[in-house]
Amino acid sequence: MRTIPALFALVAPATMLAQGTSKPVRDWRSTHEVAIVREMNALLALPNVTRDTASLRRNATAIAALMQRRGIATQLLETKDGPPVVFGELKAKGPAKTLVLYAHYDGQPVIATEWQGGAPFTPAFRMQRDGKWVDIPLPNSGRLDPEARIFARGSGDDKAPIIAILAALDGMKSAGQTPSINLKFFFEGEEESESVHLEQTLKTHAALLASDGWIFCDSPVHASRQMQVVLGVRGSMGLELTVYGPSRALHSGHYGNWAPNPGILVSELLTSLRDADGKILVKGFQDDVLPPTAKELAAARALPKPDAALRQELLLGGTEANDALLAERLLLPGLNVRGIRVGNVEGAAANAIATDAKASIDFRLVPKQTPERIRQLVEAHLVANGWFITHAAATDQERLSHKKVVRLTWGAGDAATRVSADSPVATALFGAMDELLGKPILRVPTMGGTLPTAIFEHTLGVPLIVFPIANHDDNQHAKDENIRLQNMWDGIDAFAAIFTRLDHFWPSTTP
Amino acid sequence: MRTIPALFALVAPATMLAQGTSKPVRDWRSTHEVAIVREMNALLALPNVTRDTASLRRNATAIAALMQRRGIATQLLETKDGPPVVFGELKAKGPAKTLVLYAHYDGQPVIATEWQGGAPFTPAFRMQRDGKWVDIPLPNSGRLDPEARIFARGSGDDKAPIIAILAALDGMKSAGQTPSINLKFFFEGEEESESVHLEQTLKTHAALLASDGWIFCDSPVHASRQMQVVLGVRGSMGLELTVYGPSRALHSGHYGNWAPNPGILVSELLTSLRDADGKILVKGFQDDVLPPTAKELAAARALPKPDAALRQELLLGGTEANDALLAERLLLPGLNVRGIRVGNVEGAAANAIATDAKASIDFRLVPKQTPERIRQLVEAHLVANGWFITHAAATDQERLSHKKVVRLTWGAGDAATRVSADSPVATALFGAMDELLGKPILRVPTMGGTLPTAIFEHTLGVPLIVFPIANHDDNQHAKDENIRLQNMWDGIDAFAAIFTRLDHFWPSTTP
Repeated sequence: MRTIPALFALVAPATMLAQGTSKPVRDWRSTHEVAIVREMNALLALPNVTRDTASLRRNATAIAALMQRRGIATQLLETKDGPPVVFGELKAKGPAKTLVLYAHYDGQPVIATEWQGGAPFTPAFRMQRDGKWVDIPLPNSGRLDPEARIFARGSGDDKAPIIAILAALDGMKSAGQTPSINLKFFFEGEEESESVHLEQTLKTHAALLASDGWIFCDSPVHASRQMQVVLGVRGSMGLELTVYGPSRALHSGHYGNWAPNPGILVSELLTSLRDADGKILVKGFQDDVLPPTAKELAAARALPKPDAALRQELLLGGTEANDALLAERLLLPGLNVRGIRVGNVEGAAANAIATDAKASIDFRLVPKQTPERIRQLVEAHLVANGWFITHAAATDQERLSHKKVVRLTWGAGDAATRVSADSPVATALFGAMDELLGKPILRVPTMGGTLPTAIFEHTLGVPLIVFPIANHDDNQHAKDENIRLQNMWDGIDAFAAIFTRLDHFWPSTTP
Repeated sequence: MRTIPALFALVAPATMLAQGTSKPVRDWRSTHEVAIVREMNALLALPNVTRDTASLRRNATAIAALMQRRGIATQLLETKDGPPVVFGELKAKGPAKTLVLYAHYDGQPVIATEWQGGAPFTPAFRMQRDGKWVDIPLPNSGRLDPEARIFARGSGDDKAPIIAILAALDGMKSAGQTPSINLKFFFEGEEESESVHLEQTLKTHAALLASDGWIFCDSPVHASRQMQVVLGVRGSMGLELTVYGPSRALHSGHYGNWAPNPGILVSELLTSLRDADGKILVKGFQDDVLPPTAKELAAARALPKPDAALRQELLLGGTEANDALLAERLLLPGLNVRGIRVGNVEGAAANAIATDAKASIDFRLVPKQTPERIRQLVEAHLVANGWFITHAAATDQERLSHKKVVRLTWGAGDAATRVSADSPVATALFGAMDELLGKPILRVPTMGGTLPTAIFEHTLGVPLIVFPIANHDDNQHAKDENIRLQNMWDGIDAFAAIFTRLDHFWPSTTP
């Protein structure tokens, strides 16, 4: 498996202090570790490859049963032709704020032969020995090594929060605790296939889903192994483009410097969009960029700094950021060239002018930017640079009529979201987690990647905060996906703290 | 098969007038067409894939036997571990100029299943009917349709001149004609694998090969189906380059606009080398470019102009040349991007920053430029643009020490050659061919592509002129390679004219 070096070797392990109401839950957990792992393994044994609706329905049914066993009022929210959302509700005793917890039970496709052991849906219990992950027996009882891991598709991404939430409720029950807020659970089965029915489900069940905020339990914790609250995500939008050259490949000697060269044309197109330092040159693009606030910049700079270690690991003699930190750069929009394909290189190269050049781009967006506006600006920029734009295969007549023809295929795109650190739900979450940890939890203004958070904000009008529990080295989306036990235990502590103490820290008035 | 449309439909077919001494040869040929085709077919039935030394030796032996049957003093010039050169000599009666005729008997590799009939070494005799090539029987005697073609690997490229030369000698003999110049024949078996032993062979046998000029019988005639004399070739040099990014692919959201993007870096590198109109921007590059003479420009402009028809066929709304003609542009150097490979595009695109970017370039050179000098100038240009250059895989330390690292792998390169239209051998060739055709043969100052002509000039110090006979649509290097009978007949006429009349037109003093 691909091991990710510890970038923060000097940072203390994230074993939490379990202050306040979480102490009894921790005690309960320490005597039920094997049972929790067994429940997790049983869920991981259900294949959950996204789009495999029949398998996913078996997951949904199993999760619903686990929830009902905890007294959660559970129902399956059916989608038109996909797997259902498993919805559950657990009310506080009196009037209270309402929090929805999101996780997803589907996983990325697998190539079983690439996995250690060859069976992504036979959970393996392993410890690292001499740099290798070795199978170890799961004992019948007692404490487990917190550095042990469970390997299976869906372990880190994203069944771990589901099991941790249920275990937290078990621990609370055994300690006689009840939630101090109304809890709703929304476990989706289509996250890995672009949540195609999510918006419709949110609209259909808006009343059922009424809340004061969402916590999005997905993604990994900080690479320093510390827990983090992530207040925002960058949006994203894909763009595939094809630049046209001659209708058949031409001998570069006989036609070179007469026939247009698609490799040069696509290079000019790309460098017109952004420079080597990442600055986006599209006219008007910066107008829509909401600059990070001083508070957000300060928060980004206060985070652990992986920059030097990352540069060493990645063999980078420099970055696009020059002296700026990675965390600061993620507050800005980005334009990433995912790929370029022109002719052939090395042994396969022919002395030819290729017929076309393809490039794949993904934009990363910040709040206020919209996919629609990006499309407009980029297309206007290309037209101003002499390009004729088509959104389908160019016709012969289009190619004959224009010197530079490009076909653009835009993805649907997701907008960015960024919740204010001063918002009630963020304030409450910080309070509960700071109390649990005995120190401030990492407050991340935004992650660099994209989650479909904008759909929630847009459809339901409520803030959504990302709160991950999985280890950063969980190999999500890859072979040998895993969850580290300590991350499960920390997640259980955290959910118990949130369920019992969020109410206490919720501001009485909106700042 | 890929049919190439007739770009010069209004130009009369190139059936020649057979003036002067060629008339008897033409008469002889018209009664021996079937025999000539049979001799050609027997030679084409010998597999000749380049680098297949055992097969190539069978070709060499067969060609030597054909030559000896014509009274040519023949020997095999052995190479160290490749196929031999078939060398032959036929002396004029008195003191005379000496001409060497070059052709090659090896061919490109074949994928038999792609060929019509599936057997590239079973010569097929075909006519075009309703846009398709249909097998027709070869009669036992009589005239053949001059539009019929023989399909086999090596037919157009480059066994046709060998058979045409021998048939011309047969025709001359039957008419009682003898060569008025000393003839030497140099038939190589490694042209399609970069003539790796050619330079050594020329050096070793320099005395044997002493001459007043070479005629390089390879490549096709002009696309208008008219015969041409090509006085030069562009040189060429390949460059493979790798631009380094992070040592592992990175999530474009989490690391985008911090980690360097190889797709943008390679685009900047390429656009720094040349612009979209083909102008090479490397500092000092133009200093070594010998501008075309007024006479060369005039000759280029006097050629048939395929430009408009080509633009229509290739669906080009414009060219890099703006208003300049293709033939003019070939007098200039070129920089062609053969290919670019970065990450993935379309369905395979991942939201990732790729680990590297590869590009493949070929330069086309004009006289005075040398591959060595191009290397120096390009490397100086890259260094001035902030690149650290390595010629092997970059070490970790090199990558950590430099923000922009590129690995360059240069091909050996071939220099350009361009013989003056006023040189004795060109003057004589024009004279003999103009007489044969009854009008001036096309005088092409240079072809755009590259042939290893520089090796001959450099090693032997004699001028080399390209004189092709194959049809332009012979599918050379591709499936369904073929030779059109009329091109064979024209070639026989032309060789007879050259062998008998070159002497007459050779200037008595060097201009």
